[in-house]
Amino acid sequence: MVPPMIPKLPKEAKRRYIHGEAKKEGSYTASTTPMAACLSHIPNFLSPATTSTNPIRTLLYFKPSITPSQKPFKILCSRRPDYTPNHIPNPNYVRIFDTTLRDGEQSPGATMTTKEKLDIARQLAKLGVDIIEAGFPASSEADLEAVKLIAQEVGNVAGEDGHVPVICGLARCNKNDIDKSWEAVKHARFPRIHTFIATSEIHMMYKLKMTKEQVVEKARSMVAYARSLGCNDVEFSPEDAGRSEREFLYEILSEVIKAGATTLNIPDTVGYNWPREFGQLIADIKANTPGIENVVISTHCQNDLGLSTANTLEGAYNGARQLEVTINGIGERAGNASLEEVVMTLKCKGELLGGLYTGINTRHIVMASKMVEEYSGLQVQPHKAIVGANAFAHESGIHQDGMLKNKSTYEIMSPEDIGLYRSNESGLTLGKLSGRHALKSKLLELGYDIDGRELNDLFWRFKSVAEMKKVITDDDLIALVSDEVFQPKVVWKFGDVQVTCGTLGLSTATIKLTDGDGTEHIACATGTGPVDAAYKAVDLIVKVPIKLLEYSMSAVTAGIDAIASTRVVIAAENNHTTTHASGEKTARTYSGTGASMDIVISSVRAYVGAINKMLGLGLKVNVS
Amino acid sequence: MVPPMIPKLPKEAKRRYIHGEAKKEGSYTASTTPMAACLSHIPNFLSPATTSTNPIRTLLYFKPSITPSQKPFKILCSRRPDYTPNHIPNPNYVRIFDTTLRDGEQSPGATMTTKEKLDIARQLAKLGVDIIEAGFPASSEADLEAVKLIAQEVGNVAGEDGHVPVICGLARCNKNDIDKSWEAVKHARFPRIHTFIATSEIHMMYKLKMTKEQVVEKARSMVAYARSLGCNDVEFSPEDAGRSEREFLYEILSEVIKAGATTLNIPDTVGYNWPREFGQLIADIKANTPGIENVVISTHCQNDLGLSTANTLEGAYNGARQLEVTINGIGERAGNASLEEVVMTLKCKGELLGGLYTGINTRHIVMASKMVEEYSGLQVQPHKAIVGANAFAHESGIHQDGMLKNKSTYEIMSPEDIGLYRSNESGLTLGKLSGRHALKSKLLELGYDIDGRELNDLFWRFKSVAEMKKVITDDDLIALVSDEVFQPKVVWKFGDVQVTCGTLGLSTATIKLTDGDGTEHIACATGTGPVDAAYKAVDLIVKVPIKLLEYSMSAVTAGIDAIASTRVVIAAENNHTTTHASGEKTARTYSGTGASMDIVISSVRAYVGAINKMLGLGLKVNVS
Repeated sequence: MVPPMIPKLPKEAKRRYIHGEAKKEGSYTASTTPMAACLSHIPNFLSPATTSTNPIRTLLYFKPSITPSQKPFKILCSRRPDYTPNHIPNPNYVRIFDTTLRDGEQSPGATMTTKEKLDIARQLAKLGVDIIEAGFPASSEADLEAVKLIAQEVGNVAGEDGHVPVICGLARCNKNDIDKSWEAVKHARFPRIHTFIATSEIHMMYKLKMTKEQVVEKARSMVAYARSLGCNDVEFSPEDAGRSEREFLYEILSEVIKAGATTLNIPDTVGYNWPREFGQLIADIKANTPGIENVVISTHCQNDLGLSTANTLEGAYNGARQLEVTINGIGERAGNASLEEVVMTLKCKGELLGGLYTGINTRHIVMASKMVEEYSGLQVQPHKAIVGANAFAHESGIHQDGMLKNKSTYEIMSPEDIGLYRSNESGLTLGKLSGRHALKSKLLELGYDIDGRELNDLFWRFKSVAEMKKVITDDDLIALVSDEVFQPKVVWKFGDVQVTCGTLGLSTATIKLTDGDGTEHIACATGTGPVDAAYKAVDLIVKVPIKLLEYSMSAVTAGIDAIASTRVVIAAENNHTTTHASGEKTARTYSGTGASMDIVISSVRAYVGAINKMLGLGLKVNVS
Repeated sequence: MVPPMIPKLPKEAKRRYIHGEAKKEGSYTASTTPMAACLSHIPNFLSPATTSTNPIRTLLYFKPSITPSQKPFKILCSRRPDYTPNHIPNPNYVRIFDTTLRDGEQSPGATMTTKEKLDIARQLAKLGVDIIEAGFPASSEADLEAVKLIAQEVGNVAGEDGHVPVICGLARCNKNDIDKSWEAVKHARFPRIHTFIATSEIHMMYKLKMTKEQVVEKARSMVAYARSLGCNDVEFSPEDAGRSEREFLYEILSEVIKAGATTLNIPDTVGYNWPREFGQLIADIKANTPGIENVVISTHCQNDLGLSTANTLEGAYNGARQLEVTINGIGERAGNASLEEVVMTLKCKGELLGGLYTGINTRHIVMASKMVEEYSGLQVQPHKAIVGANAFAHESGIHQDGMLKNKSTYEIMSPEDIGLYRSNESGLTLGKLSGRHALKSKLLELGYDIDGRELNDLFWRFKSVAEMKKVITDDDLIALVSDEVFQPKVVWKFGDVQVTCGTLGLSTATIKLTDGDGTEHIACATGTGPVDAAYKAVDLIVKVPIKLLEYSMSAVTAGIDAIASTRVVIAAENNHTTTHASGEKTARTYSGTGASMDIVISSVRAYVGAINKMLGLGLKVNVS
């Protein structure tokens, strides 16, 4: 944005072209206005990963609409470098390592089924994530199976641009964890083992009860062990690096490099660093660790002070070329740096960070965000950056004529860049005469890329609602997608419910469910309210001891007759458990969603969905 | 955290003591361990504002529990400097300017009533906020009245430490806005007018349609006009400074300084800057604007890229001494820098930022956060830093013996520091035999500081629930507080509801409401579900055309018989409007909450609450 930046871009573009990093050279219009200076970042703003076999996608046009006379930019697309574990040929390319399925999944209530994890992994591959941390295989048999399935199904399939993601499994520094991790990831074309041990005094003293020497020896020998299994891609993390002694960090890191580590990840485990401090940490490690030039430095920033995105970017600015993030920034406590914030900042400000760029196709961000929100049950606040409901919302009436023509007065990126289309621009309204094609188009506008059988099921459900409502709103559709597409395998099928309640009488509910053999079961119960009564009736049929941990109804907009979407989180009374990265057993919890115009019906659907998720967790997934 | 920092603190403490900036000198234990180095920030971590007439509060003890042998720190408390508009005697003191009631309130759905604004302003004063931006008086008559009331009621009352907050009103650069702003704020002991005009090329060209010269002249003359009214505290903001030309910024800022501006606020209006860039902007302005040494520099960072907290901190690091923030980071689009993140980072890392500190009493953060969440209807995501539900939650079972004794293995601040107490530690369980005192203690643990009539009302409601449930959980209480304490003035009183619904029949609801005269009204209606039916019955009685914009039920935990909390957002069909800071008229929307063990009842309560808020917006508030 500083005027001297203007001439930089065409030069940089040329350099990339000369070095074979760009597929096509586009036209570029420079200007001396500050706004043009601001727009000089735009070529980086659009993803290199948007190169595709589809010619419409290969060249992206950005319409800056500063002055009507200015021609749109043609964007040049840099190529994603070929994958070598310990080296990135293009010094400006930043790898995106997504840990939604590992760090994200270990948040309270965020347990996902194998099918859900596979769905998310496929979406991450579409997004162009470089490395997918698919889970922590030693934590439970189900986790191992999920990682293995992702390695097989996602880790061997090339995307539009020929990209196959690395599949990574977490392991503590012990042989059992590393064996299990390898067993799970080895099926991928690019498998990686990620092992870690704590290096801060407080963790070594109280958690590990080990001396520094013991910790170094453990790290060194376990990295070597991982390599000895045939894994040539090993990542090592000194846990709580943000609070570890510098000299000790240099020592342990240089030892694991010698032992064969290819990526060194520097986590600010407790989210305690501020940007300048974390950037300095990365710079110091880069300057003082013997052998560091032969490996890739990575960041992993927790968000306890709300600084994870800025810390991650400072890490990149100071030499990190792998960034660990999660979709929507989910994760333990205040979560991790969010993929969408880090990636979009690199797009908007990559030039200011020295020309850094990623391989992410940002148009799949909204779908990824919605999928993770549904499956993890961790809802995003309306004012969440990039993907929050209000992120692109302006109070109605704010746009004067001039502003409507110049969205850039208040927007720094267009919603389309993240896969979100303004419904008021498309003019597409769905009703009972709308066909499959119109439904698919509308879903795409909303960020949902749904096809095949799922689209078909959704279409029939849509038709039945359209019979009752004249206009199907965007929110109605979103609720239907939650209910129809993001659902677990059916063990118990919901049939009917009938309820009487109010301040004047006893709440009573009657429920009909169908089991796997097609047998109908009916039960009735009373409760403190209609949902309590209905859930008690379900319990009488299902006969599995269940604890309801959370019940919520997500925002439904536009009209009282809209479709309501309910979400519940349950746990089994007999506590299905999993092993946390800290080494402790934790109770698994399951979320379920349901949608209906009747909130009692949607509540029962959500409850039955969560029960199906719980009962179906161990079931094999059909990967047809 | 870098070892050389250790000796710094006692010296700095001594300096402050000598300069009369500290009330009491505490004992300080230094150590050469990295953890002790990390703890060297603690004296800054605890608020200077915790100095009070209560001797227990004057000295705060921090128990680092690193090694059992170490003695707890005694914290020294720096004094908040006396208020002079254009100068802060202590160069390390940072003013906190809260704009929750102005920028925050203009988010979609966040309209608040005068009573709600007054409640929040009182809480902000308790928190020790230096400047409260109470609204935009020219936007509507109701807004002017609310700002005036806050100026009278909050702007003249000294807190525990003698602090009286500045009350600020926003105004565009025109006489009408400035007159209205002054009319509203002049009743405060420390009144401030905040006026702004856009300075980026894109805004000047498309929004203002003015030349640079016209913009400078407008700014200069309007600042002078504000001063001429007798207001000696005038803040000026160049809107969209983040995208404005540097030289032009220096020019316009030096002109408004000459015209009498006392604070210069630099907004990154579209959230486009990254930290190094925004820090440089502040540094450049500080270095190049003639007369800047006679005013206070301020930041205002939007969160579009998720960088607002980091940008704000970089601003402070580079010389800004006023930081504009909102509770929970609410605001337009992706919101603003959040007070809790900025303040807690300054507490944790103040030393690394050159010894910066604020006057915030962080123990009131949780109550402020909950109040704003309730009143604005903008819910905070579970993984929101500092105030999210998971921010201090660890998966159960994560704590080994050693870790339980050493929370600092995974926590960088204690929940108590923000006013949150761990319920599993207090062992306090409420049941039907619990008294008022036990209820009050429990509420305090949850962060709610409730007294007087509100406590009394809540107590009776609590008793009636306790009759039905053996154990009242924390979440039950939180739902009751929403329903009982955070409620608008009653226009229509909810009586009874009776409902029949399900998959097999037509949803039918009967409703009884009482009007202001005590007359009972009964109506029945059918709908697509029980809530639709009930709302239609309410509409038949209330006879005001209403649009339901949003309906949601917030997370209810622990058991199916828990209390559900419903939230709705409505708008009047005839569009009550307000003027947005951009100059456009926007439609007002109203939120309401309701709690009950029966979701149909809680839904009706919420709807009637929102209707009461809408009907009561113009009503006078009793400030007894």
